[in-house]
Amino acid sequence: MLYEINEKALKLESEGKKIIRLNLGDPDLATPPEIVEVAYAAMKAGKTKYSSSYGENKLRQKLAELHGVKAENVVITPGSKWGIFATMFLMLKGGGNVIIPTPYWTAYDLIAKSLGAKTKLLRTELENDWKVDLDQLESLIDKDTRMIILNTPNNPTSKVMDSETLDGIVEIANKKGITILSDEVYATIAFTKTKSILDYDGDCKHILSNGFSKTFTMTGWRVGYIIANKPLIDNITKLNQITINNVPVFIQEAALKALEMQKQLSTKIKKEYEERAKMASKTLAKAGLSFSKPDAPFYVFPKCAGLDSEKFTLELLDKGVAVAPGTSFGNYREHFRISLTAPRDEIKAALDKISEAVG
Amino acid sequence: MLYEINEKALKLESEGKKIIRLNLGDPDLATPPEIVEVAYAAMKAGKTKYSSSYGENKLRQKLAELHGVKAENVVITPGSKWGIFATMFLMLKGGGNVIIPTPYWTAYDLIAKSLGAKTKLLRTELENDWKVDLDQLESLIDKDTRMIILNTPNNPTSKVMDSETLDGIVEIANKKGITILSDEVYATIAFTKTKSILDYDGDCKHILSNGFSKTFTMTGWRVGYIIANKPLIDNITKLNQITINNVPVFIQEAALKALEMQKQLSTKIKKEYEERAKMASKTLAKAGLSFSKPDAPFYVFPKCAGLDSEKFTLELLDKGVAVAPGTSFGNYREHFRISLTAPRDEIKAALDKISEAVG
Repeated sequence: MLYEINEKALKLESEGKKIIRLNLGDPDLATPPEIVEVAYAAMKAGKTKYSSSYGENKLRQKLAELHGVKAENVVITPGSKWGIFATMFLMLKGGGNVIIPTPYWTAYDLIAKSLGAKTKLLRTELENDWKVDLDQLESLIDKDTRMIILNTPNNPTSKVMDSETLDGIVEIANKKGITILSDEVYATIAFTKTKSILDYDGDCKHILSNGFSKTFTMTGWRVGYIIANKPLIDNITKLNQITINNVPVFIQEAALKALEMQKQLSTKIKKEYEERAKMASKTLAKAGLSFSKPDAPFYVFPKCAGLDSEKFTLELLDKGVAVAPGTSFGNYREHFRISLTAPRDEIKAALDKISEAVG
Repeated sequence: MLYEINEKALKLESEGKKIIRLNLGDPDLATPPEIVEVAYAAMKAGKTKYSSSYGENKLRQKLAELHGVKAENVVITPGSKWGIFATMFLMLKGGGNVIIPTPYWTAYDLIAKSLGAKTKLLRTELENDWKVDLDQLESLIDKDTRMIILNTPNNPTSKVMDSETLDGIVEIANKKGITILSDEVYATIAFTKTKSILDYDGDCKHILSNGFSKTFTMTGWRVGYIIANKPLIDNITKLNQITINNVPVFIQEAALKALEMQKQLSTKIKKEYEERAKMASKTLAKAGLSFSKPDAPFYVFPKCAGLDSEKFTLELLDKGVAVAPGTSFGNYREHFRISLTAPRDEIKAALDKISEAVG
């Protein structure tokens, strides 16, 4: 229902209604003007042609340096979502199943199903601090399991997976010969230290997915990347050749500029979102909702006993606030997801309406 | 081998070698500055966010007007290739076969195969003026046939399909209940009048694929569209939601600007490429090659009896000229494709080298 809510919110807006949109991970902060200027300069310089389906060498090289891999292990994709789809398209040919801890980002499940693969969901609970049970994980793996998808910091909980659990998952995956696809799109801007799948894996046996959307407030630019072993990178590139062809070069140059500004930008974003998370936590606690404290931007995933979050979400939208129902992230009917991606006064107004609605 | 040649040409260039690149349909003319300025203004105005997976309303509306359909029949895609992939992904689930007249654009065949579908190739010949044999087409259709792919003007021959043949194909498709996917990406800039699949089909039973790359010299911007019945448009949109999400809004605004300039730009392109085609025809005829006179930009697809075009293409690349071997477009080993997508003096130099090489 995540995408339906968004299309409905866009429609209400186009009809002139004011909607506070806390339903997407789309930061309100603008893309920094330095990045816009680089894109413009590249366009004017004629960088508006077909280019390599691997991505631009300079950008691949820079990302390889940042992640401690080789440029041949990097492919540039139009958004991290495309990278995830492409990886799953290639690895799930002919079926198989994917293990996904829940709550999850909707797209993993929808992608797997669109490819005819099965998903095995591994439930985690707020009451257990969203911890993955390792025994349960191991028992879910069977001969058809092709992949485990991790997402830390997590969307929708903004929880960073604790180091011991991650160690345990990697150990099980290695023992059983299962590939981990690790979506780390919120890692650079987490409030706490996070571990990357690459910390375990100098040879790129597992797969890292990342993007520029969140760290650099570049959601609508559609640029991300996959880091993996060379054969998979080559195959994603072949898939790029028959689908999206290439990310516009002027966008890749903008992404390269963004990387130069990483430290400065991520510091700014962390600071702003940590403030917002504090503010939201205070109001939501006062309203009697339970939730785990966000370890990263952009989400809070509160629980309200007895809530029908789909009904709640639609009614809230009519009151001018868009959030996402918990059912969009697995079987979490009593939860809903708030994205703190609006100016503080709007968030405040929205939180008041939410408090009133659950009151 | 089309994509391998391109990656090899890019590599040679990055090593400092001068390559005259006549291997892609990527016009040398720059994207008009008016279009670049609109993109820049949109970026500065903050149109850098997630947006609808259908595409922007204004752009859909404008395209609907131009094609005489409704906006609900239009979805915006990151390049026409993505639109074709998405359509085939949705229509070929669970197998089936696709009929493709040859010579064809490589991507159709590669996409079908990547989806586990079979392709049934319908050979046409230079000696028969690249005409599709209607009886042969009808005999290829079986119970598993899901789609016929047409491409007029054709890549690689630059031939516009004659009106009687197109009438006949549509009649057969309608009789047998087969959907036509009509790739008309070169239609607006054809030197002669062309018919669209929409001329037969007010109800969007068949599918039109088109893009901004060729008409507006916007290849690297990656923006195209599909016109089809609403259920298919809705399904492509759902696929967009779990893959590319949306074409950057600033690119869609640039595309809208391009449409305003369509008449002026297409006139200019037609004029330039008709001159180039004349020049090429003269030189190639003198070199003893057979080919059909281009009806549209950008290609000539000459034949040289006894040629091994893959060997020829690689040798020519070492001499600094990139063209595409005939085998990239079906079983056409004696042919090769020249894209007239370079300044005239470069084309002239390349044609001289080609003449020498086949001499």
